[in-house]
Amino acid sequence: MTSSGIETTTGQEMLDLEKNGRVERAKWVLNAPEPPSPWCQLMGSIKETLFPHGTGFLTPFKNQNGNKPVLSVLRAIFPILSWCRNYKATKFKNDLLAGLTLASLCIPQGIGYATLAKLDPQYGLYTSVVPPIIYALLGTSREIAIGPVAVVSLLLSSLIPNIQDPEANPVAFRNLVITTTFFAGIFQAAFGLFRLGFLVDFLSHAAIVGFMAGAAIVIGLQQLKGLLGITHFTNKTDVISVAKATWTSVHHSSWNPHNFILGCSFLSFILTTRFIGKRKRKLFWLPAIAPLVSVVLSTLIVFLTRADKHGVKIIKHIKGGLNPSSIHQLQFNDPQIGQIVKIGFIVALVALTEAIAVGRSFASIKGYHIDGNKEMVAIGMTNILGSFSSCYVATGSFSRSAVNFTAGCETAMSNIVMAITVIICLEFLTRLLYFTPTAILASIILSALPGLIDLNEIYNVWKLDKLDFLACIGALFGVLFCSVEIGLLAAVTVSFLKIIIISIKPGTEVLGRIPGTDMFCDVLQYPMALETPSVLVIRVKSGFLCFANANLVKHNIIKWATEKEEEENIKGNVKRSVQLVILDLSNLTSIDTAGIACLEELRKNLVLNGIEMAITNPRWQVIHKLKLANFVNKIGERIFLTIDEAIDACLSSKMVAI
Amino acid sequence: MTSSGIETTTGQEMLDLEKNGRVERAKWVLNAPEPPSPWCQLMGSIKETLFPHGTGFLTPFKNQNGNKPVLSVLRAIFPILSWCRNYKATKFKNDLLAGLTLASLCIPQGIGYATLAKLDPQYGLYTSVVPPIIYALLGTSREIAIGPVAVVSLLLSSLIPNIQDPEANPVAFRNLVITTTFFAGIFQAAFGLFRLGFLVDFLSHAAIVGFMAGAAIVIGLQQLKGLLGITHFTNKTDVISVAKATWTSVHHSSWNPHNFILGCSFLSFILTTRFIGKRKRKLFWLPAIAPLVSVVLSTLIVFLTRADKHGVKIIKHIKGGLNPSSIHQLQFNDPQIGQIVKIGFIVALVALTEAIAVGRSFASIKGYHIDGNKEMVAIGMTNILGSFSSCYVATGSFSRSAVNFTAGCETAMSNIVMAITVIICLEFLTRLLYFTPTAILASIILSALPGLIDLNEIYNVWKLDKLDFLACIGALFGVLFCSVEIGLLAAVTVSFLKIIIISIKPGTEVLGRIPGTDMFCDVLQYPMALETPSVLVIRVKSGFLCFANANLVKHNIIKWATEKEEEENIKGNVKRSVQLVILDLSNLTSIDTAGIACLEELRKNLVLNGIEMAITNPRWQVIHKLKLANFVNKIGERIFLTIDEAIDACLSSKMVAI
Repeated sequence: MTSSGIETTTGQEMLDLEKNGRVERAKWVLNAPEPPSPWCQLMGSIKETLFPHGTGFLTPFKNQNGNKPVLSVLRAIFPILSWCRNYKATKFKNDLLAGLTLASLCIPQGIGYATLAKLDPQYGLYTSVVPPIIYALLGTSREIAIGPVAVVSLLLSSLIPNIQDPEANPVAFRNLVITTTFFAGIFQAAFGLFRLGFLVDFLSHAAIVGFMAGAAIVIGLQQLKGLLGITHFTNKTDVISVAKATWTSVHHSSWNPHNFILGCSFLSFILTTRFIGKRKRKLFWLPAIAPLVSVVLSTLIVFLTRADKHGVKIIKHIKGGLNPSSIHQLQFNDPQIGQIVKIGFIVALVALTEAIAVGRSFASIKGYHIDGNKEMVAIGMTNILGSFSSCYVATGSFSRSAVNFTAGCETAMSNIVMAITVIICLEFLTRLLYFTPTAILASIILSALPGLIDLNEIYNVWKLDKLDFLACIGALFGVLFCSVEIGLLAAVTVSFLKIIIISIKPGTEVLGRIPGTDMFCDVLQYPMALETPSVLVIRVKSGFLCFANANLVKHNIIKWATEKEEEENIKGNVKRSVQLVILDLSNLTSIDTAGIACLEELRKNLVLNGIEMAITNPRWQVIHKLKLANFVNKIGERIFLTIDEAIDACLSSKMVAI
Repeated sequence: MTSSGIETTTGQEMLDLEKNGRVERAKWVLNAPEPPSPWCQLMGSIKETLFPHGTGFLTPFKNQNGNKPVLSVLRAIFPILSWCRNYKATKFKNDLLAGLTLASLCIPQGIGYATLAKLDPQYGLYTSVVPPIIYALLGTSREIAIGPVAVVSLLLSSLIPNIQDPEANPVAFRNLVITTTFFAGIFQAAFGLFRLGFLVDFLSHAAIVGFMAGAAIVIGLQQLKGLLGITHFTNKTDVISVAKATWTSVHHSSWNPHNFILGCSFLSFILTTRFIGKRKRKLFWLPAIAPLVSVVLSTLIVFLTRADKHGVKIIKHIKGGLNPSSIHQLQFNDPQIGQIVKIGFIVALVALTEAIAVGRSFASIKGYHIDGNKEMVAIGMTNILGSFSSCYVATGSFSRSAVNFTAGCETAMSNIVMAITVIICLEFLTRLLYFTPTAILASIILSALPGLIDLNEIYNVWKLDKLDFLACIGALFGVLFCSVEIGLLAAVTVSFLKIIIISIKPGTEVLGRIPGTDMFCDVLQYPMALETPSVLVIRVKSGFLCFANANLVKHNIIKWATEKEEEENIKGNVKRSVQLVILDLSNLTSIDTAGIACLEELRKNLVLNGIEMAITNPRWQVIHKLKLANFVNKIGERIFLTIDEAIDACLSSKMVAI
């Protein structure tokens, strides 16, 4: 008897304890400390954005050992001072080899990209001199190869002609390009200084893949002019205009087959060397120097056969000598300065996106970290100083960085080696390029394009996320059939529409208890989950209950609760089936006034149907707002931490009531 | 010995069982059934949107008892046939009283709103005849009072003059208004038939509050013309233009003080009656008939004193007789038909928003349900048929519905009584309104405006949600200082920006175990939550890990994991502190390709720092995508259902490894 009495007491005590714990925990939910005010949140998120590591841009200076403060500051600004100290001859050997390989690729590509940007060939070489040196001093990536790139050249040649026709006034056009470079640099450096690196994230990966593929195709089509030796070509970049212009030229025989034969044969030569290079890792230098070999061979052929007299177009004069100053060519008083600043912004973003993507991917292979904001400052300074020395927008090139990496570069020294090689070329060798056929430049650019079209990744995006694929295809088709800007705009729009669509998806899911745990999960995802009889546990599928989805969520829940009732009624069960609806708010990040109003209407509606309603595990902001809106009192404090506790508390109180 | 042996075995067995359960549950996570494909989801959500209750528009017909199918169909289309059967004399008495009260308010308001819409006065009366009758046949709300309303009149008078100047060619302007009415009706009916009711939700509650307040102020300013008797007034609606125009008129004395005195004295009379009506519930009819009394009194005064000869402006001739047909006035061949359709769309949305808000609020007071889609069809038909009979856009009026409700209406019969009263007025009494001063119309409209400015609600929105408040204020200032369209556009833009900002907020939160439970919650929200040593449990604050926030989330987590390490290091603890990072994905509704790539980089980065990573409770779509992306294999199947299980599994495997 005694023992049984003790047991009963213990059982009762346990129950009491459990109940007390439950009451205690429900109090915790209701009496959570106040969350930071929206103002604090805003300031906090600005702080977090600007100083992501709890540090300012100047913090590195403070952290250094105090004995040589000047050197510390210099080291923080110029990373080269850090790695220079441990720099050894073996490393230099590798960098020298990589730098020379890089230069042999960079010289023909630079000339080609300058032509693509509608500038004189030497500007491509200029851009391969100053920017790599500046970047080597300021940048933190070891593999990136800085210089002119295809997509940026295309952007410039498709955006700036809206302001100034390059054929009517090439000097004015060039000045605008250099001014745009200056503004692009200012924007890039500002993004880095103000730690706005997240802006680059707004161009989603999928959108970039699509944009790059579209740009590559458009660039390829532009090369038809050089490859076919067409004199009059369209200024537009979309597929249809280019196809029309090419058709007209070919139809009227204003093209020369010699150009085509020359270009195509060297294109197949370059592609073959690349194929061999991929098969045999040791011959990595073969595809890298193939463009230079093609230039030398084709120039010799043209010089020996004097093919330029038979219609083969040649580069002719390239101005030799080092970069001239271009400070006085910056056009700050141009009436269309607003347009130029806008183009500078677009170009800055696209260039940064490419550079940071390149830098990150190689850094993650070698396992070191790149400071995105420092990179932006480095590339920004590169372009600002570049614009003072006749360079156009430079950034990290996909194809050349890969060559640099494969050639075994160790530090940014390879960029310096490359720049010095290009300087030598500019000083002494430009006259040798007089007879270089333009078709060769076209084939060198064409050979670099397949690397920009990542079919594998496009398929991957399609497999993983159909909405991402839409952004990708939107960018691709936008670039192909409209213009480069439209393509970018389409990509950004689709990306943000995706966020809206996914965030306000008005679905709800019924939860059931996972056997062996206290967890409640989606019964469709876990078919073994058990529903509690007469209780409907429901969760909103979206993370934000707001004006755009609250009404539909409300209807859904009422439907679930009352339909279930009807179903049971048909079976002859007179007693109401659903007695309690538990709304699990654990995944609700935020709620707005419309969402609160809807919860309120939901409660009213359920009460009218004789159903109780409880809420579990609201998050910080949500419980705070529910308290402010007085909803906590209206629902009779039926707010619990766990679903279990909600079921226990509500059903036991119901039992007492009966 | 034996007993101890048994105990050990049991303990071991328990452990095994527990471990088996854990392994089993981890398998459940990984082997969840495939979620519906995006295509199925799309179709499902379209189906859910179009047939929210699993039923089509025609389902009511099927559910009826089969003996009188024709009657059933008719009843489903015309709800009046259902409630007519139980209609009794007592109900009619109430409806008659309410209808007469309504008419006494509706006649002066109708004339005033027609003037506001820049139409002849009789069009306001026409609009109070046909629409209420049609709505009474088709609608489901019992309290709503249909007719011309202030905001819609303002919209028409501010949008249509962009196409056709109402002063230069009033007939053409009127035809355009009627055409707009037709298109608005078509849109409304289409929204209802295709169950696009959710479109109305896109104008968030906060935005509507701000828009209504702004519109009320703008309408009030427009009344200055009538109140001051100004002849030349601006066509623009923004505060600055109106202030300028008024200042100019007052300055050049082109106004008449008699108008002002007359208007102001009757305005104070109406406001006084309203004050009395609010104090004494029984005198509810006093404020309702005050406008009519004002009209009668002021007309008498002007008639007796012949004040119109001393500069008091009067309505003059109102064309009597019933609504003429206007089918031949619909302008489908107008060159600017596109503009008209656009205006029709805007007006349709705003009118529906007001009607549904009115209908819902009174239905929820009386505790019955309104079918939003059926309401839309009813109001759409109302406007389509209205446009055939010289009516402009009608919808449910806030102020008159409140009067209807207070007057004790029982069914939509009160609308019919009102319409019949207006018909009598049109047939016999229009000539009596010849001497009615326009200043009275202005004061009647002014007296209705305070109801549209809900300062209380604006304060409430400010208290609850600062971003909602921004939408509210954006709409308010947009309407006040730019135009009605800009106000609406600002509201919609801010509302959707809000969704984006909240959805991609890149925060993370550290979780701790709530004492007495297996739950892990935000340690800031629950200061009593306990963190497990050497384990960092972290959760993403947003519901969607995507391109726009994935990078920042990654940085945050790495920062948390490595900073904690440093902190411990300073304390002299050489052993690494964080050994395991558990990422709780339970609140992640969706993930995109950039999000998956980030998880992958996060894993690599943590592994490089010697930290393990595990994932718990991914949702259906998320685990499906992680499987597709092969992330599940890369993380070594370290995916668990609960955080507890993840800690147990990872730490025990680590113990074994040591």
